[in-house]
Amino acid sequence: MADELTGADALMRTLVDAGVDVCFMNPGTSEMHFVAALDRVPAMRGVLTLFEGVATGAADGFGRIAGRPAAALLHLGPGLANGLANLHNARRARTPLVTVVGEHATFHRDLDAPLHSDIAALAGPVSGWVRTSAGVAGLGADASAAVEAALTPPGGVATLIVPADLSWSPGGSVGSPAPVTPFATVDAAVVASAAKALRTSRAALLLGGRALRGPALRAAARVAAATGARVLCETFPARLERGAGLPAFERLAYLPELAMKQLADLETLVLVGAAEPVTFFGYPDTPSRPAPAGCVPYVLAGSGDDAALALSALADEVGAPADPDLPPVERPSAPTGSLDAASFAAAIGATLPENAIIVDEANTSGLAIPAATAGAPRHDLLALTGGSIGQGPPVAVGAAIADAARPVVNLQADGSALYTMQAWWTQAREGLDVTTVLLNNRSYAILHYELAKVGATAGGERAKAMLDLTDPTPDYVHLARGLGLTAGRARTADDLVNLLRRAFQEPGPHLIEAVL
Amino acid sequence: MADELTGADALMRTLVDAGVDVCFMNPGTSEMHFVAALDRVPAMRGVLTLFEGVATGAADGFGRIAGRPAAALLHLGPGLANGLANLHNARRARTPLVTVVGEHATFHRDLDAPLHSDIAALAGPVSGWVRTSAGVAGLGADASAAVEAALTPPGGVATLIVPADLSWSPGGSVGSPAPVTPFATVDAAVVASAAKALRTSRAALLLGGRALRGPALRAAARVAAATGARVLCETFPARLERGAGLPAFERLAYLPELAMKQLADLETLVLVGAAEPVTFFGYPDTPSRPAPAGCVPYVLAGSGDDAALALSALADEVGAPADPDLPPVERPSAPTGSLDAASFAAAIGATLPENAIIVDEANTSGLAIPAATAGAPRHDLLALTGGSIGQGPPVAVGAAIADAARPVVNLQADGSALYTMQAWWTQAREGLDVTTVLLNNRSYAILHYELAKVGATAGGERAKAMLDLTDPTPDYVHLARGLGLTAGRARTADDLVNLLRRAFQEPGPHLIEAVL
Repeated sequence: MADELTGADALMRTLVDAGVDVCFMNPGTSEMHFVAALDRVPAMRGVLTLFEGVATGAADGFGRIAGRPAAALLHLGPGLANGLANLHNARRARTPLVTVVGEHATFHRDLDAPLHSDIAALAGPVSGWVRTSAGVAGLGADASAAVEAALTPPGGVATLIVPADLSWSPGGSVGSPAPVTPFATVDAAVVASAAKALRTSRAALLLGGRALRGPALRAAARVAAATGARVLCETFPARLERGAGLPAFERLAYLPELAMKQLADLETLVLVGAAEPVTFFGYPDTPSRPAPAGCVPYVLAGSGDDAALALSALADEVGAPADPDLPPVERPSAPTGSLDAASFAAAIGATLPENAIIVDEANTSGLAIPAATAGAPRHDLLALTGGSIGQGPPVAVGAAIADAARPVVNLQADGSALYTMQAWWTQAREGLDVTTVLLNNRSYAILHYELAKVGATAGGERAKAMLDLTDPTPDYVHLARGLGLTAGRARTADDLVNLLRRAFQEPGPHLIEAVL
Repeated sequence: MADELTGADALMRTLVDAGVDVCFMNPGTSEMHFVAALDRVPAMRGVLTLFEGVATGAADGFGRIAGRPAAALLHLGPGLANGLANLHNARRARTPLVTVVGEHATFHRDLDAPLHSDIAALAGPVSGWVRTSAGVAGLGADASAAVEAALTPPGGVATLIVPADLSWSPGGSVGSPAPVTPFATVDAAVVASAAKALRTSRAALLLGGRALRGPALRAAARVAAATGARVLCETFPARLERGAGLPAFERLAYLPELAMKQLADLETLVLVGAAEPVTFFGYPDTPSRPAPAGCVPYVLAGSGDDAALALSALADEVGAPADPDLPPVERPSAPTGSLDAASFAAAIGATLPENAIIVDEANTSGLAIPAATAGAPRHDLLALTGGSIGQGPPVAVGAAIADAARPVVNLQADGSALYTMQAWWTQAREGLDVTTVLLNNRSYAILHYELAKVGATAGGERAKAMLDLTDPTPDYVHLARGLGLTAGRARTADDLVNLLRRAFQEPGPHLIEAVL
């Protein structure tokens, strides 16, 4: 039949029917039929990236904002390998995401050609679901199953491996979209026990995952108002809704000694979409669990539960008033004078536009940001969930494509930016409203702390040279312009405020190097 | 005991004792003790990279030139993930290489902290040997075993996973270097059978791996002179010795239709360190094996055999004269006028300095290079062995560090350069004599061929946009300067010759963007 679908056509149409209509891609030969199908399936938007870590990070940013998966199209094992670090972050963020990896044709894959490798083995550690399509007739159904797996609460990475001959062969059949599994409702008895714990012990709530969205945060504020319980948010949220009109709960600190202080004296820690806290790293003389030994964890809502509903039921159970009393917070005024961590944060707080998305990979330079932006207009904050650096610029790409009406601000540490700066080119190509503030402190600053913290006593000159980004200092303005961005350098707080205001007014991507 | 060795000290001293005295690194918290040990083990040279794909690619380039392993120090699963693509290339090159991956402390690794993942699973597909150290006392012995595994013929990637507490704990013990296994000697009967096949059938030799070094090439030329057999080299050699005084054998073509022509009519293909040819990709309507159906493969030397010895024995067996008659070849004169693939190749042939190392990732733009450099001074050519792009700039780093006396020329396609341009910073930081010729054709040119070849008939505008590197066109001169290189742009052949001569005269790294 002349107009029989190829496997690639069926795959792409299935994805579009299931709501997956953006594909970030670094295609190669084995994906050429999928690329060719773009002209036959106009509902699919193909977005080219210059490196697979940008494609996967962008799909992560898209999923965090859109709440539905984007696809990332990758080229065989090495293409997937390049995308793994940001898939690791996406896995930790529980982002719905569909990875489509082209594989050698079935008649070619056992010949040990140069690009051959064990794709499924590479996909396993970052994927909740992995399948290698077995035939062209089932490719559409495989794609449906991948989307279903990605969307099953709490969400995750689904990887579909597609041999090239399945893509180019006729006999494809569009898969039917699977029904979406809702987040689960927490039992009333579980809510009642949590209420009892709050009434009878020194307790705090630890919010994570979906509990960091507006309705859940407001319900948590009601619980706090009625019980006096403190509320903390997890350290690196996938998406935290913040700003004017929302409670500004403290985040659990990254540094173990600070986290231990935050949790000291607690008898109960009520977990709402968050896991029991563990430190980021293990250290010689520091416990890996920052909560005190006597503190009992209590799971009100797991990651697949409806956290907002559970918190709302808990608020009712503890007899909380309908509307939480939020302390008034204001945004800072525009700073002047020298540029340091405090004035940098104030500049962001003073200029942040309405309904912005902050992609936060500021690392050590960003510690003053939460306080400075608590009274800024409503915004979302997307953090580095899995600790794999180089997440910021790609996530900014995906967030901007997920909602073109929202300005994106990427607060970006220098060393981390250098991992995935190729994302700037896609920002330019797609004309995205992303403003990158590149925090140039000329080092992997966090590692100076870590070098001391692990008891690495030496700190000799040869060791310190390995943490240092000078000699030469990268010129981020040159790099950004080389990839098509409008770029400028801020040496004072006044410069930064002016450049931010200009960037927020002009369409398209901008980079501001903030020299700290 | 005050001066008891830590695990990190024992690990580093073991490596140095075994001849592994360069470590390319992107360390994080879990590797801080290894970093700190640099000040106590001055024989180890630490080389900082800005991205793990640079560290692993540099270790590949180092191993190809030095013939002994460098180490690549990587940070947990995500750091390893970022280095996997170039480890894939190193695996295909059979480069001896030791990967040291820091893991969470043993008491921390089961807590599912954000950076936790299955490191051994990620390492498996690229490694011939993987071990997670079980205790500080055995860490030195583990390092010895890793070096032994990396050096066991034909050479490969050995991955040692080191929990952080093993690094920081006292009780380390330096491992003894293992004896190096030599390449095996091929049986006289195998040589005699090969000689018979050459005498009694239409035969060719296909050389790969170690058979591409000078002594083996000269022996192959003797065989060819005595028997009339043609000699081919594998398509993407790890290290091919070439230039004046060495035979310039044709390489097996990348394009299946050309490779089929090269092998047509053969009855025997004598394999010397090379595998039976398979096409790079599988295509509709093209066989995956380019040799004709009746052609019998005959293995004279496997990848772990001494290919030079086998070829020399074969030459004696067929009664070849001692010295092969090499046709005279001259280098081209310096081209003038417009810059295209031919004048670009002539410029390289005309200016190549003595004893250079060419790192070839020119892809489609480099087809004229072999002929243009056959009569250039002696040089080595390092190719993209595994097809995972972004290999060139990092391999250039490692090759330059392996032999500081040899100038390195990286012929680099634009799309591939953007994968690992971070390598340019390490070239600047270490003051390496690397000249990068960046071939700007503003597209993933090979994919236009591949799009047609897989029968992807559409070739519509939306598909073509996914193969296109304009809008915006990256400015490679800006990018290179941003990372600390001296950079210029050549729009004519004369420009290119002048910039090449200047780059070869001045110390330190240079980039020349050649606009084709």
